[in-house]
Amino acid sequence: MRLAIVKQDGEIIHRDKKDTPRESADAIIEAVISTSKKYIENYPNRIRSIGLAVPATVNSDAGEIIKAPNLPILDNCEIAEKVEENLNIPCVLENDANAAALGENWLGASRGFENSIMVTLGTGVGGGIIIDKKILRGVDGTAAEIGHICVEPQGEKCGCGSSGCVEQYSSANAVVRMAKKLLPDYPKSGLNKIEKLTSQMIYEKAGGGDELALEVFRRQGFYLGIALAGLLNVLNPEVIVIGGGASDGWDFFAPAMFDQIKKRAYEEPVNRVKIVRAECADDAGILGAAFLAFQTIK
Amino acid sequence: MRLAIVKQDGEIIHRDKKDTPRESADAIIEAVISTSKKYIENYPNRIRSIGLAVPATVNSDAGEIIKAPNLPILDNCEIAEKVEENLNIPCVLENDANAAALGENWLGASRGFENSIMVTLGTGVGGGIIIDKKILRGVDGTAAEIGHICVEPQGEKCGCGSSGCVEQYSSANAVVRMAKKLLPDYPKSGLNKIEKLTSQMIYEKAGGGDELALEVFRRQGFYLGIALAGLLNVLNPEVIVIGGGASDGWDFFAPAMFDQIKKRAYEEPVNRVKIVRAECADDAGILGAAFLAFQTIK
Repeated sequence: MRLAIVKQDGEIIHRDKKDTPRESADAIIEAVISTSKKYIENYPNRIRSIGLAVPATVNSDAGEIIKAPNLPILDNCEIAEKVEENLNIPCVLENDANAAALGENWLGASRGFENSIMVTLGTGVGGGIIIDKKILRGVDGTAAEIGHICVEPQGEKCGCGSSGCVEQYSSANAVVRMAKKLLPDYPKSGLNKIEKLTSQMIYEKAGGGDELALEVFRRQGFYLGIALAGLLNVLNPEVIVIGGGASDGWDFFAPAMFDQIKKRAYEEPVNRVKIVRAECADDAGILGAAFLAFQTIK
Repeated sequence: MRLAIVKQDGEIIHRDKKDTPRESADAIIEAVISTSKKYIENYPNRIRSIGLAVPATVNSDAGEIIKAPNLPILDNCEIAEKVEENLNIPCVLENDANAAALGENWLGASRGFENSIMVTLGTGVGGGIIIDKKILRGVDGTAAEIGHICVEPQGEKCGCGSSGCVEQYSSANAVVRMAKKLLPDYPKSGLNKIEKLTSQMIYEKAGGGDELALEVFRRQGFYLGIALAGLLNVLNPEVIVIGGGASDGWDFFAPAMFDQIKKRAYEEPVNRVKIVRAECADDAGILGAAFLAFQTIK
């Protein structure tokens, strides 16, 4: 877990990184509270509000985590309320992908736009959608699951239970899986010599012109373009921001992505939208959580 | 073009149907104005506001049609302003699919819900999305083009320029095309004897257990389910309303549709959403336009 002190202008003046306690929700809450107390001591009267960004479905209004697939001890945890009660400081809760979208919207690549989509190409593919300056949460807080748009009906099995989700083609894990699968077809590829492939290595090989690596990024962009074309037709946003570790391959996947978008989406939304790389890197989520926290300050 | 007088409780007390003038935008505007004048004469002091629903991309705020692919004489026509100036009665403009969504939301199948999606399975596949009681128009008014979500990347060519759009599998035209394509594989099907196939005939044959007709509807539902699963993951709505002529085959396509939705969408949005048939039939657009018109009355 990453913790930080953010000034109202967005400057991050202090950071901490800790292993997330795995034993119980209370241990996680305790970690948040103890670090916050330290911050309050070191910056007396200056810690005004707390924002939490969690990889989970959340009920932001209630400050409650609904479901955290990767950290199920947090299921149904009223984390914001507990932190707020203990510290007597307002505490707000948001999903991490939504927070990243808000962070980029506050200080990053979608700054100044009222309708934006943030797509994070990480281990999986995450999303955050802002419409008329407001995060689109959906009725249960599960909206913006962009990674689970189907782009290949009979495609790769996905952890979500479906198959052919864009996450299976455009995430960092997908880049590695696609490369491994293609190795036999590219005996001359330098990737054959590497024991433990990572998306970063494939990115480096693509830079050297490796045909296998280039084909993998072409597929990443092809399927990402199909998903984004659908989002353009359905949401007609001003800007789409693409971030996350697997967006490093931008130079190699972007041509195929733009090609599919132009072929598949309507002319008006394509002409309208800017599709750009994220600017806040790993800080997007922290900045978004801070942005929400500042809303509670009267 | 269809014209009607709607009371504030939604009762339609008068209707007219006219051929849409094809020669110019002015002729269309004149037809609206002359019929409206007749209404104003017959119902003195009772025609308070006018709502127009047009199959086009529109700028609702400006009362201007941006682009009408099926009626290009209306491109860039400031129709609402012209009607309003001539009659001195407020006039509002909306896209027809959005108006249908509003009509169903006012008096039909999504009544009482704040977050709904309307899918119209007609000649094409149209859509309207309501989020927090507001029509989702997008920045240019092109949002909710649900029919052009890609569900089969290497699939059938679509009129929009893409291929594999859900419109190519789930519209009335698609039902007919799929049936024709499958005829050679089903020599015993009663559909072989019919010269001019319509989706209605295929629907009737399905009722009699025709294997070809049943397969066509299975495919219609399969692909519609893929598109709706994506919308559930991205928008997390309370209700999806399915209308239009090609929704008559509901009993035959709904099982495959629900099957795909359950396989592909997240559990929470699936458990949340109601997926129901439309209730307002052809009146949905008229009622939606009237609903918007009533908003202008102080």
